Amino acid sequence: MVIINDGDGKGKTTAAIGQAIRSIGQGLRVKIIQLIKNGSSGEIKILQQLKIAVEQYGLGFTSKGDKSQHKISALKGVAAIKNSIDSGQFDMIICDEINYAVSGGLIEEKTVIDLIEQANRSNVHLILTGRGATDRMIESADIVTRMTKIKHAFDKGIKAQAGIEF
Amino acid sequence: MVIINDGDGKGKTTAAIGQAIRSIGQGLRVKIIQLIKNGSSGEIKILQQLKIAVEQYGLGFTSKGDKSQHKISALKGVAAIKNSIDSGQFDMIICDEINYAVSGGLIEEKTVIDLIEQANRSNVHLILTGRGATDRMIESADIVTRMTKIKHAFDKGIKAQAGIEF
Repeated sequence: MVIINDGDGKGKTTAAIGQAIRSIGQGLRVKIIQLIKNGSSGEIKILQQLKIAVEQYGLGFTSKGDKSQHKISALKGVAAIKNSIDSGQFDMIICDEINYAVSGGLIEEKTVIDLIEQANRSNVHLILTGRGATDRMIESADIVTRMTKIKHAFDKGIKAQAGIEF
Repeated sequence: MVIINDGDGKGKTTAAIGQAIRSIGQGLRVKIIQLIKNGSSGEIKILQQLKIAVEQYGLGFTSKGDKSQHKISALKGVAAIKNSIDSGQFDMIICDEINYAVSGGLIEEKTVIDLIEQANRSNVHLILTGRGATDRMIESADIVTRMTKIKHAFDKGIKAQAGIEF
């Protein structure tokens, strides 16, 4: 099963984290691989406590720093996803921000399509999050949800809060 | 902060669960109160393991059974939310399926507006999930995301799977 959480609204990553919690409750073995992100969001500590592997291959905001360095990090993340699928040790791999890595030009659409095909052959569930999944990615997925921002406190100038946004 | 997860797509409850995980990682005290639902989804076991209180006040599908019984259960859930806000023991209360309890005619819109006002006065975060939040509920919230189904495996006749839908 390939699940995509796309859109400009809040909930793409938290839905993937919630999915991880649900899945381990059903005995699935879950790994989380985050591209782009490199921060310490509140969930990381709890996921580690639950023995859910979380790996980060990101340098933070892609608008900052050298794009070629961001690309190298993203490709390391892709390699980690490939290896994790091949390892046979996981039933579900969450590829956080991978859609944004494609729409932001860090990795190719075809790279993700290849991951999807590899996961399908191996019976591994993939969750792909982030803004900007391509039509071909959406076609290749089984469940696609668009999280649309209807309103957000940021628009009123309220800053990101611990426990809410991170 | 009042957060609404609405729409016909997958991710409303899982995003709330992921939010709970993030929030406890930041030291917030979280309680989950589910209306309508009465099943044992995979996440419940893990949430209990994490000492996150989960209470269910539901009788399952509202299309089945006596509507007045569903209303009574939903009102018990509302009372539990009120008491939980008043208790001072929680920083965040997830009111799962409460939007659907309103759109499905089990509770009044005003009941939810009153809960929002009570929570704001008490500095308690509320997360309201489910389909059918009203305009007034959306106006009263700080962050609103609409989870829209772009596609779902159900449409191809694939059945709900453990670890994915429950």
